Amino acid sequence: MASSEDYQPTGIDYQRAGVDIDAGDALVRAIGSAVARTHNERVLRGLGHFAGFYRIGPAAEGATLVASIDGVGTKLKVAALAGQHAGIGHDIVNHSINDILACGATPIAFLDYFATGKLDVEVARTVIEGIAEACAAAGVALLGGETAEMPGVYHGDDYDVAGVIIGLVDQERIIDGTSIRPGDVLIGLPSRGFHTNGYSLIRAALGLNEDEEQARERLKAALPWDASRSLADALLEPHYCYLDAIRDVVAAGRVQGMAHITGGGIPGNLSRIIPEGLVAEVDTASWEPPRLMSYVAEVGDIAARECYRVFNMGIGFVLVSRPDDAEQLLAGIEGSRVIGSVSQGPGDERVRLAGV
Amino acid sequence: MASSEDYQPTGIDYQRAGVDIDAGDALVRAIGSAVARTHNERVLRGLGHFAGFYRIGPAAEGATLVASIDGVGTKLKVAALAGQHAGIGHDIVNHSINDILACGATPIAFLDYFATGKLDVEVARTVIEGIAEACAAAGVALLGGETAEMPGVYHGDDYDVAGVIIGLVDQERIIDGTSIRPGDVLIGLPSRGFHTNGYSLIRAALGLNEDEEQARERLKAALPWDASRSLADALLEPHYCYLDAIRDVVAAGRVQGMAHITGGGIPGNLSRIIPEGLVAEVDTASWEPPRLMSYVAEVGDIAARECYRVFNMGIGFVLVSRPDDAEQLLAGIEGSRVIGSVSQGPGDERVRLAGV
Repeated sequence: MASSEDYQPTGIDYQRAGVDIDAGDALVRAIGSAVARTHNERVLRGLGHFAGFYRIGPAAEGATLVASIDGVGTKLKVAALAGQHAGIGHDIVNHSINDILACGATPIAFLDYFATGKLDVEVARTVIEGIAEACAAAGVALLGGETAEMPGVYHGDDYDVAGVIIGLVDQERIIDGTSIRPGDVLIGLPSRGFHTNGYSLIRAALGLNEDEEQARERLKAALPWDASRSLADALLEPHYCYLDAIRDVVAAGRVQGMAHITGGGIPGNLSRIIPEGLVAEVDTASWEPPRLMSYVAEVGDIAARECYRVFNMGIGFVLVSRPDDAEQLLAGIEGSRVIGSVSQGPGDERVRLAGV
Repeated sequence: MASSEDYQPTGIDYQRAGVDIDAGDALVRAIGSAVARTHNERVLRGLGHFAGFYRIGPAAEGATLVASIDGVGTKLKVAALAGQHAGIGHDIVNHSINDILACGATPIAFLDYFATGKLDVEVARTVIEGIAEACAAAGVALLGGETAEMPGVYHGDDYDVAGVIIGLVDQERIIDGTSIRPGDVLIGLPSRGFHTNGYSLIRAALGLNEDEEQARERLKAALPWDASRSLADALLEPHYCYLDAIRDVVAAGRVQGMAHITGGGIPGNLSRIIPEGLVAEVDTASWEPPRLMSYVAEVGDIAARECYRVFNMGIGFVLVSRPDDAEQLLAGIEGSRVIGSVSQGPGDERVRLAGV
């Protein structure tokens, strides 16, 4: 009875109303093995139930669940225009993992939401397999997902992707910046492109919102500074996952605070962890913004301060450490560099950018 | 620096590109107290961090996390047409809670995702306050949320809402139907309307997809059988939450299996918990489908079997119990009734509907 083969409806049915249950079933079968590969011995009962199960016990007094939900934003529009969906799954998973890493948590499980107007099994499969790959790479179980076919809400090839990451941390080991002191050092970790923020501004700057054919041509063209890569490849570079880079230094207690640089840029995110009365002084001359970001800023005539407020500008994650710990952190994390320090601050401003 | 007041950008900026960071900030302020009301002593650190924190320890060996992600589907289109958004938050929360209730879990935390083309602070506030109210009513902490402004993906007043529920259960007390035996009784609990499934078919059946003005007029009209209620009110009746109805009977061990009747109807959902070799025989004559559902089926000329495959037809949740426990369950749950029983089944079919 869950299949529609045994009867002929006489009037309207769900499929003719734009919802294809069989396509949904085909998708579930297609992604099954990729999802199963993310499961470890703590995942009970696998797929097909009303919910996913992950055994966490036994757990100590301070065991604390950490969770964060997010989307990919309009990077999806670029992916749809370019027809390149393989990185989107990595984007949503890595973005989400970084958010709870910044609190000192260990990610354990992920759930995804994929919504579209008319289910394209191949596109959905590519995205969800990317989600599963990124989960597997981080040791995270893909515990559940929802694929929604919503004719009339989503148009053409458009789709949306969201996801939630769940992690664990001991209450005593939550890192939230409260131990940050004047004199602490700001260490910037390199981003791998725009990650998943600022794409509405990027699309406007590059004129990708008007004529669709023209936009596709622009995305196909090689980068002015690198003939081997298209603009689409550069814009769709997946969000970097900082789990491997910082897991050990966080466990060793060498970090006082962490900020994942997403929407709001360095000022909007670093300010979330700087205690009252202190200010993080960031010297923007201490690193070179990626060529791609200067290019978008230039083509779009975007003011420098707006760029730093919206884009990560080459710094995807910031660690705050004692000066004594900084050297070891810098030596252990590839591409990391000192980008500023923390001082006593007189006003409300928690982050000050020098050089823009 | 997180505010834009201290400088004038010279070219394109994020706001002109269609993303209004200030509107987002206004929304966060507007929903703050409603969200805070869902927090108990286990929620650490409140809002504004990279993630939400919920202390779960200490936890026994078998402590198991249960999670499920879902959306509201195109019920949102009806809400947008009618301009009535107050129930949508209850829909997503209650739908999600029921999914993990069906596994025997206790819900503890929820996270929401709200995406739109151009952020309407009042609509978003109405939806998210509804989410917070439904969470508070169920003792669930609203642990986080994401509001995404995605110009070009969402059009006009359209928005999408998704959410994830997180709960806990002891591994030994997971209810998944494996203990169901021949002779067990099927007990149906009444739904409160279409809940959140089948709206693409409902919209097509009622002709709500074509002319927008005409659709608005149709939604405003009184129900043919109840002059005091509009069609919009009836269609937007929120998803019912079965937590209070079943919490005690589940804790008392009186239930062998539970099915939340969502997309796929009774056959699609009940079949998920019926063990191999058994069949749940449902007698559709044992209850009267709600007037609203017969009306939609009639106006849309939808075949009866299609209705039972897509809509809940008046039964929103099914309990499977031993015959000896049934009487006490029926007496304790308002509106519940026997809708069938479980037998030895010869074939692959796990659910058989008599009477359609």
